[in-house]
Amino acid sequence: MEFQELIEKRYSCRKFSDKKVDKELIKKIIEAGRIAPTAVNTQPFKIFWFTSDKAKEVIQNVCNYTFGADNFLLVGYKEEEGWQRTFDQRNFADIDASIAATHMMLAIEELGLSTTWVGCFDAPMLQTQFPEMKGYHLIALFPIGYAADNSTPSERHFKRKETKQILEIL
Amino acid sequence: MEFQELIEKRYSCRKFSDKKVDKELIKKIIEAGRIAPTAVNTQPFKIFWFTSDKAKEVIQNVCNYTFGADNFLLVGYKEEEGWQRTFDQRNFADIDASIAATHMMLAIEELGLSTTWVGCFDAPMLQTQFPEMKGYHLIALFPIGYAADNSTPSERHFKRKETKQILEIL
Repeated sequence: MEFQELIEKRYSCRKFSDKKVDKELIKKIIEAGRIAPTAVNTQPFKIFWFTSDKAKEVIQNVCNYTFGADNFLLVGYKEEEGWQRTFDQRNFADIDASIAATHMMLAIEELGLSTTWVGCFDAPMLQTQFPEMKGYHLIALFPIGYAADNSTPSERHFKRKETKQILEIL
Repeated sequence: MEFQELIEKRYSCRKFSDKKVDKELIKKIIEAGRIAPTAVNTQPFKIFWFTSDKAKEVIQNVCNYTFGADNFLLVGYKEEEGWQRTFDQRNFADIDASIAATHMMLAIEELGLSTTWVGCFDAPMLQTQFPEMKGYHLIALFPIGYAADNSTPSERHFKRKETKQILEIL
């Protein structure tokens, strides 16, 4: 699929079917994140893949927005591993993790799967449940599956600002 | 081009040819940013397009890394316009702007153009030069053009971490 078509077709899917997802597809999504560019190639992010029944149970309990999915990837970053801009001490780890996560979100769509970037989850609670996440800023939870037949974009999806509202011509 | 091919082919281009870029292509890049998803559809980002000779002169003077490009887009965000997660007061405006910027970076590649996501620029100085940027966190400068014939990826490009270094299986 062409990129323009891909980003126009993508929407935040909130209803998944029962169809199982091949693990090889999840690996391709992780690979799309792995090769993402980061500031000065610092790669300060980590991808958490929920595979065990116990881990999946925890994520379903901690997060309200899992939408019946059975596959979950979570992206986090460590600020101390990020590059810092000298001019204003801006650390880029959050940006880097977001680039990787955006690669992943779009790869999910390209593979014929669906997701929604969930930011609303109890990050501190997750960190108490998974010691592996300690020290990571957790910014993106992707429930992954095949969209249910009756899945549709939310009304919000069609309410993007107009170009003139997000553009400043200098 | 398929998405997987697109992200594998993309690299940070640091040498541009003199070939002029059609303004319609720049508009398509902006459109790719406009339709990006953001937390609770807050869309807290702005795209700055440098079109006047004066604005282009300033950006070339303020930033060391413009690589001979003649087209520039800059992405910034306002934190107060972002969505805040209740659990830990995490504001998502930086993430949202990064998603939009990643859409733009990939659209540039899809259109046959090249760029590199420049984070290393004097953001405070830019804000003194352009009052329109006041209050915005400036995170991505895209010099845009056609890659020079002798442009190649940097050595760094081939030094991504291995999967096991960025993945935690739970």
